Amino acid sequence: MCDKLPKNFNDEAAVFAKENGGLIGLSGGRDSVALLLMLKQVLKFPHLAACHVNHCIRGTEADADEQFCADLCKRLDVPFFCKRVDVPALAEQTGMSLEEAARAARYQAFAENQSGCFIVLAHHADDQAETVLFNMARGATGPRGMRAIDTKRGILRPLLNVTRREITDWLVARGETWRDDSTNAIADVTRNRLRHEVLPLLNDALGRDVTPTLCRAASLFHETHDALSEAIHALPTLDPQGRLYLPFVLQQSTALRKAIIHDYLRSRGVPNLSEATVLAVDAILPPGAEHSRICLPGGILAIRHHKRLELQWPEGR
Amino acid sequence: MCDKLPKNFNDEAAVFAKENGGLIGLSGGRDSVALLLMLKQVLKFPHLAACHVNHCIRGTEADADEQFCADLCKRLDVPFFCKRVDVPALAEQTGMSLEEAARAARYQAFAENQSGCFIVLAHHADDQAETVLFNMARGATGPRGMRAIDTKRGILRPLLNVTRREITDWLVARGETWRDDSTNAIADVTRNRLRHEVLPLLNDALGRDVTPTLCRAASLFHETHDALSEAIHALPTLDPQGRLYLPFVLQQSTALRKAIIHDYLRSRGVPNLSEATVLAVDAILPPGAEHSRICLPGGILAIRHHKRLELQWPEGR
Repeated sequence: MCDKLPKNFNDEAAVFAKENGGLIGLSGGRDSVALLLMLKQVLKFPHLAACHVNHCIRGTEADADEQFCADLCKRLDVPFFCKRVDVPALAEQTGMSLEEAARAARYQAFAENQSGCFIVLAHHADDQAETVLFNMARGATGPRGMRAIDTKRGILRPLLNVTRREITDWLVARGETWRDDSTNAIADVTRNRLRHEVLPLLNDALGRDVTPTLCRAASLFHETHDALSEAIHALPTLDPQGRLYLPFVLQQSTALRKAIIHDYLRSRGVPNLSEATVLAVDAILPPGAEHSRICLPGGILAIRHHKRLELQWPEGR
Repeated sequence: MCDKLPKNFNDEAAVFAKENGGLIGLSGGRDSVALLLMLKQVLKFPHLAACHVNHCIRGTEADADEQFCADLCKRLDVPFFCKRVDVPALAEQTGMSLEEAARAARYQAFAENQSGCFIVLAHHADDQAETVLFNMARGATGPRGMRAIDTKRGILRPLLNVTRREITDWLVARGETWRDDSTNAIADVTRNRLRHEVLPLLNDALGRDVTPTLCRAASLFHETHDALSEAIHALPTLDPQGRLYLPFVLQQSTALRKAIIHDYLRSRGVPNLSEATVLAVDAILPPGAEHSRICLPGGILAIRHHKRLELQWPEGR
């Protein structure tokens, strides 16, 4: 049996799961089955468990998915958690699409069964490319994608740069099977069209597979933003009381000033941050500006006072 | 006659041309005709000239384009420069595509007729969206697009956030005409497919026009990179001799360290910079690293020496 992992498998992400324990989101589909086998059989991680969510969407098929996952975990000697969620009812109650409701139910189930360990998800390069294109096109701030190592949310994605084809080949080479899991049937219309129409057309127009380049754009996007945030924290933007120190901020170019303001508001927890909010705050910073205070989302006040900018929360917070 | 400019016309870019003079690239197509009318008739800029390049691609049509531009400039009292370039021959000689050769010929002609003033180009939002998608898909580092104000290259693009439709409506409302200029016939296959197939499909899948969101992604991309570069320059990354000061650099995270190294190598003129080069340099920085020097593109040596990194050019440069 070939014990080689696909070449773009993210060892660094996997190591986090090895050291801290990992709870694998197991749908029974090819991606999560492959991920479980890689971590358990190839890397022999000692602290692994799997969590399956039965979405109650296509009755007998969903039950067969659940049974498949239970059997696989038994064979591999991996603790198996299962949760049933009536996703159609949840979607109805909340007004979410079936896909959104299913995702919410899964993350909820993972959170319930996770304590200190990482959640390990089987998102792969094709998922990432689709997400990048989706986010770009619907107006995110850039090619934002998923992170392979998301320590803030406790999520790891070791397959994020491995393509669907590589995963399939890997499973076939080992003689493993998987289920065409029932959640595929509820992918929303836009994502389905991106996957089955736009990305193939883009590949055809460019004469190459654009998946790796879209994945790379996402990882560079996150890296650039991380670097910028870290660089800003290394600059003297704040006074000892943690207020924005304007004599320094006002010396910078518009681009850096906007980044500093954005970072300051975000780190202080201002909700629904938009570029318009950042520009509105920027406008009150100069000593001669018409206004010296402005109301932000959440009823937070931004106030310029003695060469400082500070935030004031509404009463009762 | 309506003297209102389209709402996303970039005043800031236009002002550069007003103050420093502008040479408009005039093809006779709708975009450049509109741009010339906006700057001359609406904004009444005093120092304007136009430059037309006859690409000698479709004989009589190209000649009619040239005549149209000459007549328009005469009517508007704008100095008119014209240059004939045998683009098919240039493409043949250089191995460039017709489109690449035409672009090279145009920029060459602009440069010849420009002295201290800005080149003002009529690229619009649809061009930008196409460029962003093209760059993303072919593996640029992100949604890199054109800049509305490119002071390094002396280029201004006041229409960069105005759509083709807004430009057409503007011209029609003023009763102006234009030529379907002959260079449209030589757009390369990939760009044509992005324009006529991929972008319309993307719009349809998302149920909205993705042009503004792709344009916004590009402007945020450039702004983020500008802010990062400026922030890095404000950090103590260099010693007084301009060498990379490693005790500071090595304290930073991988993301910021890579950005610092990239910025250092780029600002020193290392050619063909890639992520691989940045990572290779990063690997020699730690005091205990196996190697303390590495050869970069262009035969440049990167050498770690006494807590500093410096570059050594090959003899004769």
